[in-house]
Amino acid sequence: MTASNPAKPVKRSAYVPSLELVRDVRAGGVLAIARMISRAEAGYAEASEALAQIYKHTGKAHIVGITGVPGAGKSTLVSALIKAFASDGSKVGVVAVDPSSPFSGGAILGDRVRMNDAAESCQAFIRSMATRGHLGGLARSTLQAVDILDAAGYSPIIIETVGVGQDEVEVVTAAHTIVVLSAPGLGDDIQAIKAGILEIADIHAVSKCDKPEAAATISALKGMMALGTAKTDSAWNPPVLPVSSVSGERIGDLKDAIGRHWVHLRESGELADRQRGICKTRILGTARHLFQQKFNDEAGEVEKHIQAVVNRDMDPTVAARLLLGWDNEVRPR
Amino acid sequence: MTASNPAKPVKRSAYVPSLELVRDVRAGGVLAIARMISRAEAGYAEASEALAQIYKHTGKAHIVGITGVPGAGKSTLVSALIKAFASDGSKVGVVAVDPSSPFSGGAILGDRVRMNDAAESCQAFIRSMATRGHLGGLARSTLQAVDILDAAGYSPIIIETVGVGQDEVEVVTAAHTIVVLSAPGLGDDIQAIKAGILEIADIHAVSKCDKPEAAATISALKGMMALGTAKTDSAWNPPVLPVSSVSGERIGDLKDAIGRHWVHLRESGELADRQRGICKTRILGTARHLFQQKFNDEAGEVEKHIQAVVNRDMDPTVAARLLLGWDNEVRPR
Repeated sequence: MTASNPAKPVKRSAYVPSLELVRDVRAGGVLAIARMISRAEAGYAEASEALAQIYKHTGKAHIVGITGVPGAGKSTLVSALIKAFASDGSKVGVVAVDPSSPFSGGAILGDRVRMNDAAESCQAFIRSMATRGHLGGLARSTLQAVDILDAAGYSPIIIETVGVGQDEVEVVTAAHTIVVLSAPGLGDDIQAIKAGILEIADIHAVSKCDKPEAAATISALKGMMALGTAKTDSAWNPPVLPVSSVSGERIGDLKDAIGRHWVHLRESGELADRQRGICKTRILGTARHLFQQKFNDEAGEVEKHIQAVVNRDMDPTVAARLLLGWDNEVRPR
Repeated sequence: MTASNPAKPVKRSAYVPSLELVRDVRAGGVLAIARMISRAEAGYAEASEALAQIYKHTGKAHIVGITGVPGAGKSTLVSALIKAFASDGSKVGVVAVDPSSPFSGGAILGDRVRMNDAAESCQAFIRSMATRGHLGGLARSTLQAVDILDAAGYSPIIIETVGVGQDEVEVVTAAHTIVVLSAPGLGDDIQAIKAGILEIADIHAVSKCDKPEAAATISALKGMMALGTAKTDSAWNPPVLPVSSVSGERIGDLKDAIGRHWVHLRESGELADRQRGICKTRILGTARHLFQQKFNDEAGEVEKHIQAVVNRDMDPTVAARLLLGWDNEVRPR
């Protein structure tokens, strides 16, 4: 293959070998981080070795998931939190997978990095993931982006995601501390209960606390927890915190609660259990994605097997085992 | 391994070799059918060869899925349909995966076959699948039970399933003709829309048509279809049929509509597309199940990989590939 291959144009001048990129990521180079996330997102084969290298240097960051139904005010809250953490000197990373997020504006192109006002003044790194065309790989590439920021020394790393859909839930449960944001008067408390995201909260935040309806939402959440739907396998009682992202009111309280939860996880020994659970979920999710990818990449091969099953030449189990690569030969008919 | 192995008691007297069982199934032996379904359900390794043999003799039956929210009256409708089809001389098979179904009474034991009044007088074969402990294999074993009845000469084969949950939807979309049952006044039209099962209907049935509220449900369904949420890739317009299973009223109309849809599929050529889609879904679902099963069966091996990922000795992609058996060695660190 030459550089003039019309199918795969390669800009030699822009190409940085993967291991060089790993070194630059670890040194905190913003361009290297952006490039590496783009390669992970595109699923380039040469990225996998670099990601394996990156992964060795992860495990230091505090990963914070922020979720809630659309309209709850997640992006505004994230902007306020960036400023609050940065004022302590933290290097904040943000990975947004909310398609309704303003951070996601440039995500369709897949390789754009947007820094908003908060980010620019605070040296935060904000990345939004494209939510289209991912074929179930969204959770995988989002968590790879978190790995890259982790290896680059960012902490906390905030994952912003809308709390609906299997992929999104898989992403947010990979966080150490999960903040579920509810907005008063949206009727979203019921939606969130349905989606099962209220139960996973380590911290409940109620936005727009200057609105009179906020009190009702706060007491509804407290009532729900008294009913025992909250996590019970822990000495941690999820606090319910009113916030106002616009005025910045009480954002400090939320920041402190996030920090307290991180201390709790480490001191109680719960962090080890959570790490184990996160790794298990990531392995399973990755395996599912790899198989789905194989199914899409090898369409001709898959088609042959489908036709064989249609024709009753083999049964679905034999076809599945062959496509998984677990058997090499078709049994004699 | 001996017969006295306490972990796996084997009743030698009752054991019938798999290929003998296949022969007996094809001859229509009721006991052989029941045994073979139990073996498929238990996931015995020796069943897979027999199931592969069975599969060659499938593809003759008309598979009818009946779904609807709990309380819609599915089981009563199925009983009425058994009688209606049997009166034409059909050998009706039923596989119920609805945990609230009265047919499922004995399903927990996994090897019981219950024939109710309708079944006994009509020579129908009714089987309910255990819905617990299946770890995602419910769709697979249910469709294997359908295969067994198909090879034994049953047609139509009715799959009764509650239209909630991924497994259940996977099962019902493996039918040639999908009947969605709605009951007036249950508020279930909204529930069914949410669950996405109304769109998959080839035929809408509205139960309890003697109730005054039935008219509203019927016009709501017709209105929905006018809005274009119904299938549009077909010359088939899903009819909306009022039925009363208790009085038997208009059950004949539903039976005729099911038969007309079967004729339509064959004459329009749509049957081939549908068969292809069914086989594709079954292969993907089976592969997912096989991997999940491996994950459970090889707990020690999986645990080692999880720990390696926790320790940052390998990344989730490497672990997933190793567990999939797609790589044999860990890359040098």
